[in-house]
Amino acid sequence: MLSSPECLTCNLNSMLKTMREHGLSEKETERIFLEIFRQTAKMDFSLTPVEIGRILGKIVTGEMGIEDLFREEKVRSNDELLSIYDDLKKIIEKSENKLLTALKLSVAGNTIDVGPGHEININETMERVLKHDFAIDKFDLLLEELKNAKTLLYIGDNCGETVLDKLCIEYINVPEIVYVVRSEPTLNDVTMKEAKEIGMDSVAKVIEGTDGPGAILNESTDEFKYYFKNADVIISKGQGNFEGLSDLKRKIYFLLIAKCDVIAKYIGVEKGSFIVTTNSQ
Amino acid sequence: MLSSPECLTCNLNSMLKTMREHGLSEKETERIFLEIFRQTAKMDFSLTPVEIGRILGKIVTGEMGIEDLFREEKVRSNDELLSIYDDLKKIIEKSENKLLTALKLSVAGNTIDVGPGHEININETMERVLKHDFAIDKFDLLLEELKNAKTLLYIGDNCGETVLDKLCIEYINVPEIVYVVRSEPTLNDVTMKEAKEIGMDSVAKVIEGTDGPGAILNESTDEFKYYFKNADVIISKGQGNFEGLSDLKRKIYFLLIAKCDVIAKYIGVEKGSFIVTTNSQ
Repeated sequence: MLSSPECLTCNLNSMLKTMREHGLSEKETERIFLEIFRQTAKMDFSLTPVEIGRILGKIVTGEMGIEDLFREEKVRSNDELLSIYDDLKKIIEKSENKLLTALKLSVAGNTIDVGPGHEININETMERVLKHDFAIDKFDLLLEELKNAKTLLYIGDNCGETVLDKLCIEYINVPEIVYVVRSEPTLNDVTMKEAKEIGMDSVAKVIEGTDGPGAILNESTDEFKYYFKNADVIISKGQGNFEGLSDLKRKIYFLLIAKCDVIAKYIGVEKGSFIVTTNSQ
Repeated sequence: MLSSPECLTCNLNSMLKTMREHGLSEKETERIFLEIFRQTAKMDFSLTPVEIGRILGKIVTGEMGIEDLFREEKVRSNDELLSIYDDLKKIIEKSENKLLTALKLSVAGNTIDVGPGHEININETMERVLKHDFAIDKFDLLLEELKNAKTLLYIGDNCGETVLDKLCIEYINVPEIVYVVRSEPTLNDVTMKEAKEIGMDSVAKVIEGTDGPGAILNESTDEFKYYFKNADVIISKGQGNFEGLSDLKRKIYFLLIAKCDVIAKYIGVEKGSFIVTTNSQ
């Protein structure tokens, strides 16, 4: 999916917010911000949004000299989800189609508000997942393919959500499951560190993918490229991975919430829609 | 008032919105947008927000080849306010301090929603003006100064609001009143064309000031500079004029609503506050 002008302003707003939240001085913020403008002016719209986010994100972290800007937030959101893990598991166990419920929960991961002091209401969360009709619903196809798959490549996205991915993977009966994390800290995305902290390595083989806020095939590790080529089924979580992979000629199941106007328009759904789709059939 | 990084993103969002609203092709939008980035990268934060807005605005109108992007919106908002002009006048006439009420109404001008299909409720509007405490209230000083003034320079801002400026001026008893409009179309700001359409020239001498979305002294007409230097009292309406003039060593009464976080923080009030302030006493 190629970038729109809106992706540039969105990235800029996000970079500025990051600098503000980390209490950078006004002078430093101004200096880094103008550097971002200089770099952005050199870009063109043949890049995907996530490629732009990767380049600009590296400028900000490099200039700020902080490798992992969202480490605290990542730990907090994982901890909050882990604290309700067993309760969510009980709900899945009681449901008619366990895997489907687990997959739905993993899509809903993005909507759970894990802000500080925010009490997560499990019933409310579940209700929201069950109440929401998926704007595009290819669950049937996905479940069918998973039945016969020998290898599943499951590309993760944010922390918090990754705990629900782990829960979901517990219900996927595929011999080899490979879970992909970012190869460097980027936004609040899950890396090897957080994956191990939540015990993802007990349910899947965890590998590193891309060093940006979404999967970018030609910027990925060889291990990722290998599984991307050879896996029987690929599940891609979230918007960042969709942005980077949606135009590739490779069947992928995209599980995401369309969080911005650009993506919603591209897919042809309302903003905020829950989606399980695939780029070829 | 100097710019913050937020002023850059705000300007960019506004430029992009303008291009979208005018149905510019994706290719043209992308081309112009990257040009804006190139120009912005050359700037620094010694410019006021309105100076940045002026430069970027000229790029957009120049590249789009449309001189007056908001002409329809300007006419519509003026017409809507003119349609309730006599009713507002009646309310002023009934009030205890007519000039104060007229001034308050003119400040409130910015809050009146003149969107298409939006019915203006006079009572609601009046109630809002009367209910709102001004976060900074130098009305007493202003009224006192107006008593002895021989010349008043009244610097206008948006259309719609300009109709309330006219109503207000009817109640100002100063021998020479000079009303300032923009010297070129910029956003939905009032120019000579709209000022004449609403009959501003029947209550004041109308002159052109700056060709940007706020007063910038060194980019203004000689006539503006003359009155800026010599007027007994200066009233400056709105945020754009505040941005351009607030740091000058010249007593000015600023009547505005603090519409963004940057201005609110600069003035030291809550966002959305009604303000009548002056930069020296």
